[in-house]
Amino acid sequence: MRFLSETSSDGVREQLFELGEIPGVLWTPEGALDARPLVLMGHGGGQHKKAPGVLVRARRFVTELGFAVVALDAPAHGDRPKVEEYDRIVTGNRARIEAGAEPAELIAGFQARVARQTVPEWRAALDAVQQLDYVGAGGVGYWGVSLGCGLGVPFVAAEPRIRAAVLGLGGAPASAEAAEAITVPVEFLVQWDDERVPRAQSMALFDAFASTEKTLHANPGKHGEIPAFELDSTLRFFSRHLG
Amino acid sequence: MRFLSETSSDGVREQLFELGEIPGVLWTPEGALDARPLVLMGHGGGQHKKAPGVLVRARRFVTELGFAVVALDAPAHGDRPKVEEYDRIVTGNRARIEAGAEPAELIAGFQARVARQTVPEWRAALDAVQQLDYVGAGGVGYWGVSLGCGLGVPFVAAEPRIRAAVLGLGGAPASAEAAEAITVPVEFLVQWDDERVPRAQSMALFDAFASTEKTLHANPGKHGEIPAFELDSTLRFFSRHLG
Repeated sequence: MRFLSETSSDGVREQLFELGEIPGVLWTPEGALDARPLVLMGHGGGQHKKAPGVLVRARRFVTELGFAVVALDAPAHGDRPKVEEYDRIVTGNRARIEAGAEPAELIAGFQARVARQTVPEWRAALDAVQQLDYVGAGGVGYWGVSLGCGLGVPFVAAEPRIRAAVLGLGGAPASAEAAEAITVPVEFLVQWDDERVPRAQSMALFDAFASTEKTLHANPGKHGEIPAFELDSTLRFFSRHLG
Repeated sequence: MRFLSETSSDGVREQLFELGEIPGVLWTPEGALDARPLVLMGHGGGQHKKAPGVLVRARRFVTELGFAVVALDAPAHGDRPKVEEYDRIVTGNRARIEAGAEPAELIAGFQARVARQTVPEWRAALDAVQQLDYVGAGGVGYWGVSLGCGLGVPFVAAEPRIRAAVLGLGGAPASAEAAEAITVPVEFLVQWDDERVPRAQSMALFDAFASTEKTLHANPGKHGEIPAFELDSTLRFFSRHLG
């Protein structure tokens, strides 16, 4: 883990880093010295580690809860190079969708493939940032919707350090098997009029989590229109389970 | 409105009253002098105005939000006499269910009938308690699940003073028309394994609300097993919309 830069504003320290060839960013409270809960945040498709929504959430986790937050660019996103294999899959999927295939299943299948790469990357990121005195080996949460859900479900299933997860805007059979291995508390976000994820597939994914505490929050609106008050709920959820 | 008794404990004043022949209870902060938001709370089937769940919620609304809370016995519940017509309907419904009819529809139809009585009763209760200096004519919310939802949906639809409602554990076509007339923010509670309300009917009722802000919260468990943290969410919901 190699730090590239460090800046601070309004109580939040932001450190850009590289972990091998993976670009990442760590946010912590300015002046933080000792261990604290950590949230790993996955970004959406076409976004990156410092997308506006990621920044808004990270700042609130740091300033209101005192948590550390880490985000990485997903493969072929942000500052990372294209991946030929993924390009081929995406091109092939586009052709299949034009020929009438169900997009949600193809997208979920693709995300499951990418997760085989990101699960070990994210575990390595946890290993690295937990070495820092001002992060430490406390409770870890995961936040990710859409692509962040498709990659997050296998990650949360595989990583015992994750104690609570906010997931959503995802569904499809590709995630179901991993979801059945998840037993930590889950807050699951559904957009009632999601144009990308069929409602029944969202419900089926929620159904599949083995967690005894899991809550589905559904709100009207399209894929990208999660209402602002859900972030308040997210903060309380992580505060309850990691704080 | 005739007050029958007044007691206080731990910061909460409880006043039992009669409104005509309807027994009710009003909770306000001890020493309250001026106007404050008000929540009218509907109880569940077989319960009454001072059922344990009602008391727990009322106490938190009063002590944490400074609100007033009013609850009435529903017809044929608590201190109110049996209603012959309702008994006949219930007996007839039981026979139909034994003969294979769908219970949820019959229950919803029955609740719609009772609501024709309770909507004017509840409006009269609002009129009366809003005359009190220490309640006043501020924002009013409604809380009710199960029977409190079946009676609450027509009430919230009919009563323009209601600015926000927590509803749930209900569904069925009987409520859909009234639900389409509801435009205030709604938090809607669904128990994922509800043995009384089919999941699809819950979803259909949520779908029917015309509110631009409505959130469905689904949790695992049976009809009576809403998790405790939903009350925290209810408090924040009313605080946001009435506070």
